[in-house]
Amino acid sequence: MDYEIFELGDVRLQQGATLSDAKLAFKTYGELNADKSNAIVYPTWYSGQHYDNEWLIGEGMALDPAKYFVIIPNMLGNGLSSSPSNTPAPHDRASFPRVTMYDNVRFQHRLVTERFGIERLELVTGWSMGAGQTYQWAVSFPDMVKRILPFCGSAKTSRHNIVFLEGVKAALTADAAYAGGRYDRQPDIGIRAMSRVYAGWGFSQQFYRETIYERDPLGFASLEDFLVSFWEGLFLKRDANNLLAMLWTWQNADVGRTPGFRGVEDALAAIRMPAIVMPAQQDLYFPPEDNEWEVKHMPRAELRVIPGAWGHFAGGGLNPEDTRFIDDALKELLRLKV
Amino acid sequence: MDYEIFELGDVRLQQGATLSDAKLAFKTYGELNADKSNAIVYPTWYSGQHYDNEWLIGEGMALDPAKYFVIIPNMLGNGLSSSPSNTPAPHDRASFPRVTMYDNVRFQHRLVTERFGIERLELVTGWSMGAGQTYQWAVSFPDMVKRILPFCGSAKTSRHNIVFLEGVKAALTADAAYAGGRYDRQPDIGIRAMSRVYAGWGFSQQFYRETIYERDPLGFASLEDFLVSFWEGLFLKRDANNLLAMLWTWQNADVGRTPGFRGVEDALAAIRMPAIVMPAQQDLYFPPEDNEWEVKHMPRAELRVIPGAWGHFAGGGLNPEDTRFIDDALKELLRLKV
Repeated sequence: MDYEIFELGDVRLQQGATLSDAKLAFKTYGELNADKSNAIVYPTWYSGQHYDNEWLIGEGMALDPAKYFVIIPNMLGNGLSSSPSNTPAPHDRASFPRVTMYDNVRFQHRLVTERFGIERLELVTGWSMGAGQTYQWAVSFPDMVKRILPFCGSAKTSRHNIVFLEGVKAALTADAAYAGGRYDRQPDIGIRAMSRVYAGWGFSQQFYRETIYERDPLGFASLEDFLVSFWEGLFLKRDANNLLAMLWTWQNADVGRTPGFRGVEDALAAIRMPAIVMPAQQDLYFPPEDNEWEVKHMPRAELRVIPGAWGHFAGGGLNPEDTRFIDDALKELLRLKV
Repeated sequence: MDYEIFELGDVRLQQGATLSDAKLAFKTYGELNADKSNAIVYPTWYSGQHYDNEWLIGEGMALDPAKYFVIIPNMLGNGLSSSPSNTPAPHDRASFPRVTMYDNVRFQHRLVTERFGIERLELVTGWSMGAGQTYQWAVSFPDMVKRILPFCGSAKTSRHNIVFLEGVKAALTADAAYAGGRYDRQPDIGIRAMSRVYAGWGFSQQFYRETIYERDPLGFASLEDFLVSFWEGLFLKRDANNLLAMLWTWQNADVGRTPGFRGVEDALAAIRMPAIVMPAQQDLYFPPEDNEWEVKHMPRAELRVIPGAWGHFAGGGLNPEDTRFIDDALKELLRLKV
């Protein structure tokens, strides 16, 4: 096991359920300095686990473990933190309670403060649902977070994004083997179907037009090879109930539902720390227009669009050019005195 | 029965199969004039039947039945022409042979020439797969077609579009009730799943962002109402094998596979009649960029983008503003002396 567990105990969730013996899996990179002033939180994305985030951490990069103490908390539902797949009855499998972004960040805050005694974070950053958690950190703990850089994500899931996810969910659950979540074996036909649904959304039209999946750095042999090896491979590693639990979290993400706020605009206006908000130019489910609207409501945020053809996966660490673009922005933001 | 059947007899298909007693269902509007110089062909789209095309025909419109003789041929696989659902063994259900755009247009040509003795067409036009058939008419019968106006479609299905359709297909067939096409009852869970997959693609992000589905002229009560009443309603009317047969035709559409041509660029260069090619600005699976590329290879084509938020369904006849835009272009093209 290359990660640690923070025992949350019995937790009351925003939607009302109590989850017993809840666990937050995490991994840290680098050393926390003496005055605890070098911590960064970098949450995970839909289906991702901490090691899927590691591409943005390294020597000479913004998230340099020689300089920063980077904490990657695993999102609930991702199979490492409390999830349908690892929670005993009565909250096992499809009976796993609904977890919000707000809940996730509340638990991460406990990890950061109770376990490490950290009072301020240099930065919170993340991709996709990790970006959603980044916004939530800024809204839930404004005095603690010095800077944010959410990439390819949003503060509130858009209606179109909800519809995209309806398709993903319907494809997965159309497989009778899903059996309302009471399966003994993974419903792999459904998981393969949702992977194919996802494939058209994850990358842009241009990406497919120019067969970028066949070239460096991906180098798949054909379109079908890409659909099977990359897409089906990505989700077949996961548990169906976990995928649906995280999907609920995603569809219902909205910083405006944070206690004390009256909707998303009110919450965005409270994000007063410096922010660079980075959509990908051709992202089909987190399009730049949504972030543009958000940034207008955020006092100190800059919109900086990741150019190119990789769509949502510009933020997935697969394309060195996009990674450099994100890393440069992170360096710039971290240099900013706050 | 509000339509007629043209008996094709036993036909040899481009992919090699012979389909016995093939039938082409069609409906005509207006009267063929004495010198047979006022005919227009207006093919159907994915899952659509001739009555779904009627919104573009009417008094005072470009396709005015007082002036033109409009023929709407039903695409094979759409449930009215020869289809998996209406063909006897051995070509029934999932054993229905693969039909190309080239085949469809060849049969339509027989209808037009053998049944009506028409030698020239004033216009061929159509939406989506109807646009695909429009391109095919221009390539297959260049001396017969005076003008074309394909809207929200392409001459060759793009890779990204193929991937979108892989998701649709995977969602439908994930339902075990599909049973390899040997079902007794429609696999309605799969059809509902594919409908939800389709929903995110058919309209644009902006369409959902601005809840245009709740306003005039649609007026659905909620997002869920739109997903069920519009989307699931659209495809639950259809037969699963028919949907998959047409999907194959779509994925494999390519005017460049017309006998005598060496690929799509060669075929496009042969489209020498005046053409207005009309993508919708925010179409997610027939994006304007694909048509822009095509038009560069077509000697007398103009690209004219349908503005607005309706995405692919700008061409579906639901939005009066888009319909007027298309109708205006049709009028302009029909006024052109050829």
